[in-house]
Amino acid sequence: MTAMIFLSKDCDDIMLEKDLTFDDIKPRLLGHWGTCPGLVMVYAHLNRIIRKRDLDVSPGILASLWLEGALHAFYPEYTMTSAGLKRLISLFSVPGGFPSHINAQTPGSIHEGGELGYALGVSFGAVMDSPDLIVACVVGDGEAETGPTATAWHGFKYIDPAESGAVLPIVHVNGFKISERTIYGVMDNKEIIALFTGYGYQVRIIEDLENLDNDLAASMEWAVDEIHKIQKAARSGKPIVKPRWPVLILRTPKGLSGPKKLGDEFVEGSFHSHQVPLPKAKTDKAQLDLLTEWLRHYEPQELFDAQTGEPVPEVLSIIPQSNEKKMGMRKETYRAYQSLTTPNWQTHSAEKGGEASCMQAVGQFLRDVMVENPKTFRMFSPDELESNKLNAVLEKTGRNFQWDVASRGQGGRVIEILSEHTCQAMLQGYTLTGRTGLFPSYEAFLGIVHTMMVQYSKFTKMAVETTYRHPCGSMVKTSTWARQEHNGFSHQNPSFIGAVLNLKPKLARVYLPPDANCFLSTVAHCLRAKNYINLMVGSKQPTPVWLSPEEADLHCIAGASVWKFASVDEGKDPDVVLVGIGVEITFEVIAAAALLRKLCPSLRVRVVNVTDLMILSEEGTHPHALTNSSFNTLFTEDRPIHFNYHGYPIELKGLLFGRPGLSDRVTMEGYREEGTTTSPFDMMLANHVSRFHVATAALRVAAPRNSSVAVDAHKLEAQLKHMAEKEKQYIYATGKDSDAIYTVPKFE
Amino acid sequence: MTAMIFLSKDCDDIMLEKDLTFDDIKPRLLGHWGTCPGLVMVYAHLNRIIRKRDLDVSPGILASLWLEGALHAFYPEYTMTSAGLKRLISLFSVPGGFPSHINAQTPGSIHEGGELGYALGVSFGAVMDSPDLIVACVVGDGEAETGPTATAWHGFKYIDPAESGAVLPIVHVNGFKISERTIYGVMDNKEIIALFTGYGYQVRIIEDLENLDNDLAASMEWAVDEIHKIQKAARSGKPIVKPRWPVLILRTPKGLSGPKKLGDEFVEGSFHSHQVPLPKAKTDKAQLDLLTEWLRHYEPQELFDAQTGEPVPEVLSIIPQSNEKKMGMRKETYRAYQSLTTPNWQTHSAEKGGEASCMQAVGQFLRDVMVENPKTFRMFSPDELESNKLNAVLEKTGRNFQWDVASRGQGGRVIEILSEHTCQAMLQGYTLTGRTGLFPSYEAFLGIVHTMMVQYSKFTKMAVETTYRHPCGSMVKTSTWARQEHNGFSHQNPSFIGAVLNLKPKLARVYLPPDANCFLSTVAHCLRAKNYINLMVGSKQPTPVWLSPEEADLHCIAGASVWKFASVDEGKDPDVVLVGIGVEITFEVIAAAALLRKLCPSLRVRVVNVTDLMILSEEGTHPHALTNSSFNTLFTEDRPIHFNYHGYPIELKGLLFGRPGLSDRVTMEGYREEGTTTSPFDMMLANHVSRFHVATAALRVAAPRNSSVAVDAHKLEAQLKHMAEKEKQYIYATGKDSDAIYTVPKFE
Repeated sequence: MTAMIFLSKDCDDIMLEKDLTFDDIKPRLLGHWGTCPGLVMVYAHLNRIIRKRDLDVSPGILASLWLEGALHAFYPEYTMTSAGLKRLISLFSVPGGFPSHINAQTPGSIHEGGELGYALGVSFGAVMDSPDLIVACVVGDGEAETGPTATAWHGFKYIDPAESGAVLPIVHVNGFKISERTIYGVMDNKEIIALFTGYGYQVRIIEDLENLDNDLAASMEWAVDEIHKIQKAARSGKPIVKPRWPVLILRTPKGLSGPKKLGDEFVEGSFHSHQVPLPKAKTDKAQLDLLTEWLRHYEPQELFDAQTGEPVPEVLSIIPQSNEKKMGMRKETYRAYQSLTTPNWQTHSAEKGGEASCMQAVGQFLRDVMVENPKTFRMFSPDELESNKLNAVLEKTGRNFQWDVASRGQGGRVIEILSEHTCQAMLQGYTLTGRTGLFPSYEAFLGIVHTMMVQYSKFTKMAVETTYRHPCGSMVKTSTWARQEHNGFSHQNPSFIGAVLNLKPKLARVYLPPDANCFLSTVAHCLRAKNYINLMVGSKQPTPVWLSPEEADLHCIAGASVWKFASVDEGKDPDVVLVGIGVEITFEVIAAAALLRKLCPSLRVRVVNVTDLMILSEEGTHPHALTNSSFNTLFTEDRPIHFNYHGYPIELKGLLFGRPGLSDRVTMEGYREEGTTTSPFDMMLANHVSRFHVATAALRVAAPRNSSVAVDAHKLEAQLKHMAEKEKQYIYATGKDSDAIYTVPKFE
Repeated sequence: MTAMIFLSKDCDDIMLEKDLTFDDIKPRLLGHWGTCPGLVMVYAHLNRIIRKRDLDVSPGILASLWLEGALHAFYPEYTMTSAGLKRLISLFSVPGGFPSHINAQTPGSIHEGGELGYALGVSFGAVMDSPDLIVACVVGDGEAETGPTATAWHGFKYIDPAESGAVLPIVHVNGFKISERTIYGVMDNKEIIALFTGYGYQVRIIEDLENLDNDLAASMEWAVDEIHKIQKAARSGKPIVKPRWPVLILRTPKGLSGPKKLGDEFVEGSFHSHQVPLPKAKTDKAQLDLLTEWLRHYEPQELFDAQTGEPVPEVLSIIPQSNEKKMGMRKETYRAYQSLTTPNWQTHSAEKGGEASCMQAVGQFLRDVMVENPKTFRMFSPDELESNKLNAVLEKTGRNFQWDVASRGQGGRVIEILSEHTCQAMLQGYTLTGRTGLFPSYEAFLGIVHTMMVQYSKFTKMAVETTYRHPCGSMVKTSTWARQEHNGFSHQNPSFIGAVLNLKPKLARVYLPPDANCFLSTVAHCLRAKNYINLMVGSKQPTPVWLSPEEADLHCIAGASVWKFASVDEGKDPDVVLVGIGVEITFEVIAAAALLRKLCPSLRVRVVNVTDLMILSEEGTHPHALTNSSFNTLFTEDRPIHFNYHGYPIELKGLLFGRPGLSDRVTMEGYREEGTTTSPFDMMLANHVSRFHVATAALRVAAPRNSSVAVDAHKLEAQLKHMAEKEKQYIYATGKDSDAIYTVPKFE
């Protein structure tokens, strides 16, 4: 590790036969030394026990990966020779080399740090449905301060020891984060034992510096025994009630075995060892000499063969012999993708012309997916399965909550912990090891995992670029602001769409299916998709079914189409194009079209629904983006277009900006962050997306081009204004929307 | 509470003298009954002890607020009469009434639920620098599952009992969330006591249903005694080492005193009581009768005066006499804003033409702010103060980490917990009680609090609309993707800008000051601002100082201006306008202008820097938005414009969309999510924002209009491409950028 931080490609003497010179040092010194000694020690001991007990353990770190040959397996240039070792050292953390922390390029990794807090939750997700796998998860005491980690400790309460593997958490308490003491660092052993006992663990603390190796070895043996005891009981049909899984606390000074002091400042055992302990080694002779001394005391000559540079047999002796046992070469971390058998969604299709809840229909479909994929599909939800009307899945499976003595008998494929962070982390661990997961959540609260989702997609991007990976993830988001009126302002926030729009186009998909059949078709498609973040925005309330199953499939494949039944002359030669994006919002567009048909028959209206948001983006910027010519076929070449959009208009503007000459013929309305606890239709009024607003907008933009419309425009606007006010009065008088608002418009 | 959920305005018999009829029931039944009994009980007992012990305790809930007259104080129509009571009941959770949960309209509230997890952290922030205040924070066992709450329990470790008040956490364990058991609900008392002992608390469990009142009363007496003991010791100069603050665990069945069963389903003590226990009361006779029975067993006639409808003296006897003691009328929750004395920033200004780190300069300024505002200004950071080079503040104050025996002596104004959630929650509690806070963080990780920030701004919006509030908050975000090359891809994510752009314009401000003087001017401005989310994006690395202090002030007031020193003929009659937004990005624009001056002297370039992003938004959509005419004065009426932007281009497109006829003369580059561990300039190359890309873009857009440019355009493009490749080769050969890249361009 030390050599990797400091030694440049000009250093040919990595065995330190001569003293180092400034030329041997890298121009930019980057890395995180402080935590390395502990990690290396843990890795070595994991190897020891894997070999001794023939275990399946994940995952890995860089230098150790070279040592076990995993690096060489995926990056042939990293040979087990002095050349390979030198490459590892000199290319570490420089352009073209490996970064200073584990990322998707690192063999065996299923999680990148940087944004801290999720390693533990990801580990729990990774062991689900892999009964023989043990994931050793090292949690630093910095990461332990994060909220997501603080609640992820409960994760094992959702692990069924009969069907899933185990996580062995190793808390690495070295006392410091970047520049401040850590909370765990200032907690004494009594406090730590009490805390983890309360979480439900058996705690073993490893801190005797004189005897670290034996202590760590014995502790791992103990931990693995405890894990097997719990699993054996569960698998023999006599599960232990509230089984107490093991946790190891490793207390070592930060930067153990590094320089003790630099001038008067402590280095070992202080935050000074967090990144680069000898920052001036390239220019300061004293620091350079300290470095020589530091590197020499590891006695490289004893560790590597003088000729070949290969590690000596004694070092290699702890490494598992078979490749698939090596932590850096676990199949789970690559080539692990298992595609789903997706049943025919049409068996759950809703009848055209009727009403159906998107979520209820999807729930029935997912129930069948559960049945046909008993080991490769799971749902993670912050206790929102019922309230999102997806509960049909519970007919064929249960909620897996082991700690609940009453319900643990049943186990099941649904995890409901009121922690979006834990749901997302488990989803990531589960999908990055080749399975498929679904995360139903309230629209307003899905943003809680905004950055996690971004990190996940970054990991996916890198993973896909390094050829050997196939992760896969899906999200459903529902209960949109448009139907959160009773919960009020705090439950209204569609901004997660924008978060997904910012992702690399090749990884991001956003769908707003307008009815139950379209939603079914979209879910069925997304469950088969690989390496995407699929965001689906729908409604749980019953809404009209506009399209037959066949029409729905065609509409979803196209991403958008003219809805002839709501358009004049099937939308030919229109004065105005009205576009609906989103369930409730599209209903208002159709209602507006019906209003206009009655109030202003001479106005030629074309109604378009967009279900795949990405088709709007500038030609060439996204795989789904329409060419400019097909865009104009759909939206006309020169007619005014009014968008009625579910999300923030600024997102739509961003998507449309590059389309030639559009800005002067486009108007739009969307979520304005208005409205609190009120009725659904009052939300439409407050945010200017109601049928009355749409119809008014249509008249305004069409009038300049259509004289017969212009004549009546003002009169009609006043009329629409009046109708809107009447609805508002009704709502505030009765506390509810008038039934008329929900009757499906007729087009004579 | 029950009456509020069910009884409509048509019900004149709120004392239940007759049986209820369907007409008495609201059309839409909304609310969250399950948790009410516990909350009411807690509120009553808090009142009791406030009155008995003359304490200062915050905050409140709706029905109790009516009872204590706080509702009447802020909303005169809610009189303490049967009319007022009826209003409270019939308008609850209907359009125009109060929502079904506490929000900014609720007197005494400083936090809205909905998105769960932050009540505890907010409470810790609220008591800081208010030595006599006790915030009683009720945490449900649903909320307790969230990550942010799970780590916020450590919050008291950052509270100095000598200078700050105390939080009294009351964990309300009723066993169920929306439809699943809770983690705390299935933990036995041993587990809960161990967990909270580990967190560092003294635990007292209240669960004897036969004896709840006495037990709760005694427990509160005990808790207050313990709090005073800890505070007394600290304030007498003999602080207790690791003081153990009290926590109360209240175990009651969910929906206690509600209907026991509905058919065969349990209601009391099950998730069925979460929202509306008798959902069909409007149509089902059996449920209606159950409701009558339920309401009657509270014996309303005993509680209210038959004539006036006023609560009987016995009920009122527990309410504090003086208004300022009433939890719904705490001054801290309104009229609490204390403006800062902001020192003159110019004393820390950097010399024009030199180099300076924005963050270092700001750090020195903030040090003075700390000194001049010893009780009203704090900084909250996830251990990123040092790494963001703001450490100058530590010369005059310390980090407040009470649990660290070594450092706790000093106390201090800086809180560094590695939990963005806790930092943001404490910031909210501190600012919503009238003080000012700053949250320095890495750009990529600030998004962790995306939804918290949105909720905070929603609360602010509502608070501002209800006239009596003046919160204030500021955020600084630094260490942008442009300088995260060594940490790699995972540390690169400017998406938080987009999150702020989505907020209500009147609440949101985004600044990207181009140099140290501009950053100082901006911070000084933001610390004086009220009710805004101020987002400032800067760099911690030394960068050129382009403007003098005076020029910087003018530039920041304007929000954007032509940089004549980098433009041809001071930017008159340009062929192309080059716009830089962001520190490093603007440097590249200036370098590009210098390159073009040399390579293509006939090309007339205007260089513009934008420091206030909001000036770009469509005329009339934001207070800072430029009129179209001033926009054209700055960016010309018809010349091509190339934007070099720090964030995601889609955001910029969204801002510019409404500007007439702009899309066909605008090109732009921004963050493309490219690059990993590499050199800073390689990041510019990878994301197409380097000087070479800017110069190339300038030539391409200018060529069609300027024949003399057109002639050489292709040759010059090839030349620029070659220069870029040479730099890249240098970077990969040496591991660093060439010095030439950082030398400030000269304009002859």
